[in-house]
Amino acid sequence: MQGQAQQQAYDRGTTIFSPDGRLYQVEYAREAVKRGSASIGVRTAEGVVLLADKRSHSPLMEPESVEKLHKADDHVGIASAGHVADARQLIDFSRRQAQVERLRYGEPMGVETLTKTVTDYIQQYTQIGGARPFGVALMVGGIENGEPRLFETDPSGTPYEWKALAIGENRADIREYLEERYDEELSLDEGLELALSALSDATDELLEPDGLGLATVTVDDETYHQYSVDEVEAVLDEHDLLADEDAEGDE
Amino acid sequence: MQGQAQQQAYDRGTTIFSPDGRLYQVEYAREAVKRGSASIGVRTAEGVVLLADKRSHSPLMEPESVEKLHKADDHVGIASAGHVADARQLIDFSRRQAQVERLRYGEPMGVETLTKTVTDYIQQYTQIGGARPFGVALMVGGIENGEPRLFETDPSGTPYEWKALAIGENRADIREYLEERYDEELSLDEGLELALSALSDATDELLEPDGLGLATVTVDDETYHQYSVDEVEAVLDEHDLLADEDAEGDE
Amino acid sequence: MQGQAQQQAYDRGTTIFSPDGRLYQVEYAREAVKRGSASIGVRTAEGVVLLADKRSHSPLMEPESVEKLHKADDHVGIASAGHVADARQLIDFSRRQAQVERLRYGEPMGVETLTKTVTDYIQQYTQIGGARPFGVALMVGGIENGEPRLFETDPSGTPYEWKALAIGENRADIREYLEERYDEELSLDEGLELALSALSDATDELLEPDGLGLATVTVDDETYHQYSVDEVEAVLDEHDLLADEDAEGDE
Amino acid sequence: MQGQAQQQAYDRGTTIFSPDGRLYQVEYAREAVKRGSASIGVRTAEGVVLLADKRSHSPLMEPESVEKLHKADDHVGIASAGHVADARQLIDFSRRQAQVERLRYGEPMGVETLTKTVTDYIQQYTQIGGARPFGVALMVGGIENGEPRLFETDPSGTPYEWKALAIGENRADIREYLEERYDEELSLDEGLELALSALSDATDELLEPDGLGLATVTVDDETYHQYSVDEVEAVLDEHDLLADEDAEGDE
Amino acid sequence: MQGQAQQQAYDRGTTIFSPDGRLYQVEYAREAVKRGSASIGVRTAEGVVLLADKRSHSPLMEPESVEKLHKADDHVGIASAGHVADARQLIDFSRRQAQVERLRYGEPMGVETLTKTVTDYIQQYTQIGGARPFGVALMVGGIENGEPRLFETDPSGTPYEWKALAIGENRADIREYLEERYDEELSLDEGLELALSALSDATDELLEPDGLGLATVTVDDETYHQYSVDEVEAVLDEHDLLADEDAEGDE
Amino acid sequence: MQGQAQQQAYDRGTTIFSPDGRLYQVEYAREAVKRGSASIGVRTAEGVVLLADKRSHSPLMEPESVEKLHKADDHVGIASAGHVADARQLIDFSRRQAQVERLRYGEPMGVETLTKTVTDYIQQYTQIGGARPFGVALMVGGIENGEPRLFETDPSGTPYEWKALAIGENRADIREYLEERYDEELSLDEGLELALSALSDATDELLEPDGLGLATVTVDDETYHQYSVDEVEAVLDEHDLLADEDAEGDE
Amino acid sequence: MQGQAQQQAYDRGTTIFSPDGRLYQVEYAREAVKRGSASIGVRTAEGVVLLADKRSHSPLMEPESVEKLHKADDHVGIASAGHVADARQLIDFSRRQAQVERLRYGEPMGVETLTKTVTDYIQQYTQIGGARPFGVALMVGGIENGEPRLFETDPSGTPYEWKALAIGENRADIREYLEERYDEELSLDEGLELALSALSDATDELLEPDGLGLATVTVDDETYHQYSVDEVEAVLDEHDLLADEDAEGDE
Repeated sequence: MQGQAQQQAYDRGTTIFSPDGRLYQVEYAREAVKRGSASIGVRTAEGVVLLADKRSHSPLMEPESVEKLHKADDHVGIASAGHVADARQLIDFSRRQAQVERLRYGEPMGVETLTKTVTDYIQQYTQIGGARPFGVALMVGGIENGEPRLFETDPSGTPYEWKALAIGENRADIREYLEERYDEELSLDEGLELALSALSDATDELLEPDGLGLATVTVDDETYHQYSVDEVEAVLDEHDLLADEDAEGDE
Repeated sequence: MQGQAQQQAYDRGTTIFSPDGRLYQVEYAREAVKRGSASIGVRTAEGVVLLADKRSHSPLMEPESVEKLHKADDHVGIASAGHVADARQLIDFSRRQAQVERLRYGEPMGVETLTKTVTDYIQQYTQIGGARPFGVALMVGGIENGEPRLFETDPSGTPYEWKALAIGENRADIREYLEERYDEELSLDEGLELALSALSDATDELLEPDGLGLATVTVDDETYHQYSVDEVEAVLDEHDLLADEDAEGDE
Repeated sequence: MQGQAQQQAYDRGTTIFSPDGRLYQVEYAREAVKRGSASIGVRTAEGVVLLADKRSHSPLMEPESVEKLHKADDHVGIASAGHVADARQLIDFSRRQAQVERLRYGEPMGVETLTKTVTDYIQQYTQIGGARPFGVALMVGGIENGEPRLFETDPSGTPYEWKALAIGENRADIREYLEERYDEELSLDEGLELALSALSDATDELLEPDGLGLATVTVDDETYHQYSVDEVEAVLDEHDLLADEDAEGDE
Repeated sequence: MQGQAQQQAYDRGTTIFSPDGRLYQVEYAREAVKRGSASIGVRTAEGVVLLADKRSHSPLMEPESVEKLHKADDHVGIASAGHVADARQLIDFSRRQAQVERLRYGEPMGVETLTKTVTDYIQQYTQIGGARPFGVALMVGGIENGEPRLFETDPSGTPYEWKALAIGENRADIREYLEERYDEELSLDEGLELALSALSDATDELLEPDGLGLATVTVDDETYHQYSVDEVEAVLDEHDLLADEDAEGDE
Repeated sequence: MQGQAQQQAYDRGTTIFSPDGRLYQVEYAREAVKRGSASIGVRTAEGVVLLADKRSHSPLMEPESVEKLHKADDHVGIASAGHVADARQLIDFSRRQAQVERLRYGEPMGVETLTKTVTDYIQQYTQIGGARPFGVALMVGGIENGEPRLFETDPSGTPYEWKALAIGENRADIREYLEERYDEELSLDEGLELALSALSDATDELLEPDGLGLATVTVDDETYHQYSVDEVEAVLDEHDLLADEDAEGDE
Repeated sequence: MQGQAQQQAYDRGTTIFSPDGRLYQVEYAREAVKRGSASIGVRTAEGVVLLADKRSHSPLMEPESVEKLHKADDHVGIASAGHVADARQLIDFSRRQAQVERLRYGEPMGVETLTKTVTDYIQQYTQIGGARPFGVALMVGGIENGEPRLFETDPSGTPYEWKALAIGENRADIREYLEERYDEELSLDEGLELALSALSDATDELLEPDGLGLATVTVDDETYHQYSVDEVEAVLDEHDLLADEDAEGDE
Repeated sequence: MQGQAQQQAYDRGTTIFSPDGRLYQVEYAREAVKRGSASIGVRTAEGVVLLADKRSHSPLMEPESVEKLHKADDHVGIASAGHVADARQLIDFSRRQAQVERLRYGEPMGVETLTKTVTDYIQQYTQIGGARPFGVALMVGGIENGEPRLFETDPSGTPYEWKALAIGENRADIREYLEERYDEELSLDEGLELALSALSDATDELLEPDGLGLATVTVDDETYHQYSVDEVEAVLDEHDLLADEDAEGDE
């Protein structure tokens, strides 16, 4: 109880440190991320794979409307976990930045530069009062100078670059799965399989095309490609990860 | 009690997360929505149906003045549940956005774009201090590129697309009713019947024309049409859902 | 006590919801309205009647100075209940809006549009911090397109249209009285009698001209007419509602 | 105690209502008015009388410097009770308003209009946060269209018109005295006597010229006239209300 | 204790009244004035005398640097008691106002007008939040239209005019001394003696030139004159109020 | 416990001092620095060495993305310890300042001037409310007028110049190590060895190239040089500080 | 304990007075000054001496970087005690003011004027909310009109002029030492000795050149001169105050 009372003395504002130098509101925002369904990113030799778990709670909801994958620019995709409405703000910010950069320099914005512009924006919400931190983590994947890049932004505003990562629910389990199987020389198809099998493993279930968002940015065309439900189904089928939909009906 | 005290430590501002990453003020705003009378939306092959329960507490009140259905633009209607005054703010915002878009691009605003402009506006009230979240949910229905679309905005600022949905009182019961009977190939008339029977079922009563708001946006003319009391009565009569008004007098 | 403590945790700001989705400050502002003396409105076939109870506590106070009836524009009158100073702010706001509209469009502002402009203004004070809600309710009555209209604004910023209504003290009793006797085909004179007898009934007293404000806006001339003390006395006398003034002296 | 604790929960800001719809800070500001020495106003057929009790606590203080009577414009005087420094702000505001009106329209500002401009200003301090209400009440007396008018402003920002009134200390006693003896047909001289005798009665003492402020605005010349100490002495003497100054010395 | 707890509930902000209509922060600022060493003002037939007790606590401190007497304009001097740094702000404000007035109208600013400009400025700090009241009282003395005038400003922003007064430490004792001996027909020299003997009496000590500030503004030349240490010593010597400095050494 | 309660009374804002004159929020920000992994700086006769411990927690994270070494300008490098996102803000600020200075004066900014511009910026966050202090310390190293310089900025905004220093984890141990072995006449290579051996000693482990950031600014070319992983490996190998990587695999 | 609880009720903001008229935050800022190492100033007939104790805690820190002596303008030096980062803000402010004055009037700014500009700036931080007071005291020494002047600024924003003074640690002891030995006719060299011996006496130790800052502004050249370590050593040696450095090594 004393620990809790101690914590409560410092956890209600972005503008104070706790005596041991922690920012509790930022840590609580990380909890908001963990409450969100998982997203997985895998960087392969041929491009970046972004996968999002977006199973909805009602058959009446349009699965496409569960927004977890976004095109930030032609050559950059973003997957999110956590508060959807917060994610939208950051996505909008990213798109505006990418557009401005293109207009100003006549060139696409680098994936790293874009990520760091976003994290600097996020940081402001952890230091200046009058607002709460963003309750969302993003994976920013794309092609920069012909190389696939994959970044994470967390609620503190720290950018990290990853070979493969998971954010949201079951993050730890999925990361462990990825660490065991990842290889930098994976082909794009192998990367797709790795991401999908990691998610299936973490949820102990086969996967339904409707409940997944899948996108890639490949070195070849440097273009964000979001998979249709049929395309997702084909990939799942190819890798024996497709759930038998008959059990749920096919509305 | 400890759980409650714990909750109270984090539930009095939009700018703080609770230790488990929740935004209590947003959750309380959802309660405000549940306190409002129900609205139901059904997307059919021929267009979108919006139905609002607007029974008033006094025969002296003009039923038309209970505002739950609004025309946002020629091709878009909005139904609300929750704080009426909050809803008006969002409706006004929607109309201005739709007008500006029309003026700027010479084309009607897409239903999805309009919805997301509104949810982004709502999100600001959940992150920046000095105001409370909007205590209202909206259903935004209309025609976009010849297709009927039906969206929901909730107090967190998240947009969802639905085939059919209910907001406000009895939301869970009505949704269950809709899930059991909904079919994407419904005609507009069948959609009207589904919405009305769902409401009648949830309230265990036959319906009075005065206490209902009913509107459609059809693929044919892409035009918002709000039903008159007589039109509502005809529809109710046709589907054997009309209450016997003699019991209440006919002022 | 727990209920009270629970309530107190959420009732000191316009910017927070209670856990059950209520805005206590708005509800308390409604209490401020109930503390005010009653105003009554009746819509008749021939025009709108506005009646205000403005008995003062001292014979030295000028009864005309108890402000409860206001001309908002040539064709619109407003009666208030609750904080007089708050009412004045809203009346001033209404007048400015009506003037601006007239200047801009060369036409009088619609009664409904005027009412909703006021309620939107009221709503801001229930959502944005740094101020309290308005502790006043208004009845806005006038002629629009040749039709009598009668609206209410409450402290939440919700507009309602009524056939007849009461605000302030004894609201429930008066409404019950009105509901029993109201008929849409009332003549203006019958409307005057209904309003006056409802007030007399609720206070269990005959009425004094000095302690009443009475005004009409008729379909004929679409003009706000405020009754003089002598005119009020004549009306009271005609309907046998006039108190015997000798008991109080006649200064 | 519970009542007090209950009250304390709502009495520390101008931006909150108590559960029963009261604004405690405004009520406390009224207490500040009651702590101030009394001012009395009497409207007679010939003009308005303003009287202020300004006994000082030291013979070394210049009685003229106890500011309770002010000329707002040629034809308007203001007497105050309560916080002197707050009164000065409102007097300054009144003077600026009267000047601006004169410049804009080439005519003196009406007494009623001036009063309501002041009360609207006062109201802002009861609704918007970041400041306290004005701890002062004013009596605004003057001639408008040839008629004497006498208004009161209170800390809530409500304007009242009076035939005769008292503000500040002993307000209730003095009002009772005035109610018993007031007559609308009083001459100016009778009005002076009524005001002075009311004050003498309430304080149970004869009056000293030094400790009084006395002013009139008459219908004849529509001009504010502030009495000199000698003039006050003459009036007191004439009405046998003059204290024997020898007891205090005549420095 | 209850009284204290009661008081503590209302004494931590300039923007709230206590239930009995008091502004505690202003009262506490008056305590800050009482903590300051005394200043005395005497208005004589020939001019105004300002005297300040400025004994320092160390022989190494330059007595001239203890700022208690200030020239506000050629014809106006100001003495202060209380927070020195707060006094400086008000002195600077006074000087700027006097300069602006001179530039605008080509005439010196009246002593009364200057005082009231300062008190209006002070009042703002007692009503608007976000700052504390000024913890200082001023005596403003000068010549206006050939007449000597002497005013006081207190932390509430109230202006008073005095024949003679004391502010700061021992205020009550000194005032009693002044009340017994003051005469309006005093010569300037008699005024000097009265001020000095009052201070000597209140402190039960003879006076040292180093520990005093002495200034006059005379009707003759309408010019502020601050006495040098030698001049002070001569005056003290003349009136047998000079302390024997040998006891302390003569550094 | 009393000590802790005492501390808690003053430790939740940057705008208050504790009774003993401490700024707790600044002290807590220093704790945030101590939580960060260590950085070490050594000034040698030939240039400045900056070393950062950046071991990551997952083999999937790109070690280059753990940002602890930054080029501020051609001739200045910065190493950080503490909140990474906070550090980024200060680095960006430094770069902008250095650019502006170069543009304005056509010369590189002095290392000392740059450091003090940063510390002045940091200080603002310790005095003005509405934000928290920066939870990061920086080492700023570079060449100024041909001389190597090495500065530290701490969360209070105080600049220090050092011959050699450590910030972050194990600061005290590393400093002790440095104090024992430092000599101003060290060559750059000896400086590299000193920094690396100090880190190895503090962590009781040999070092892995992937987990280290190493940079120098030399007097020769006045240019910031960041070592590649291969270069780091070569240096470690040369000084027998290279960990045997086989134990961990070589993903 | 009651005293402490009483104090805690008023000590957490710059905008409130305690019931006895104190500003606790300013008093706590004075404690911050006392925590700083001492600075000593001596005004002699030939100029002003400023001495600062700046012993560092590590032999690796550059003693020059402990900033306690600053040149504000050619003819003015400033020594500080307390928060170093706060001091820097005031020094920067002083320099800008001195530059502006020089540009505007073509003359150096007077030492007294400069000091008072700084104290007025400091005062703002004690009255306006949203920031804390400056936790630093300054000694401002220089030549004005051919005369040496020596001022102190404290956290309340009060300026004092001194013949000799100490700020920071051991202030009382050093002042006593100075009071016993100070003479206005001291030569500059005697002033140097007095300052150094006072510091040595207070710390009970001989002095090391590295741990001292020493500066003078002389009447002769009206120029700030900061002593090099060698110059300090020579002075110490001359007055037998030099510590034997061999005990510590000569890194």
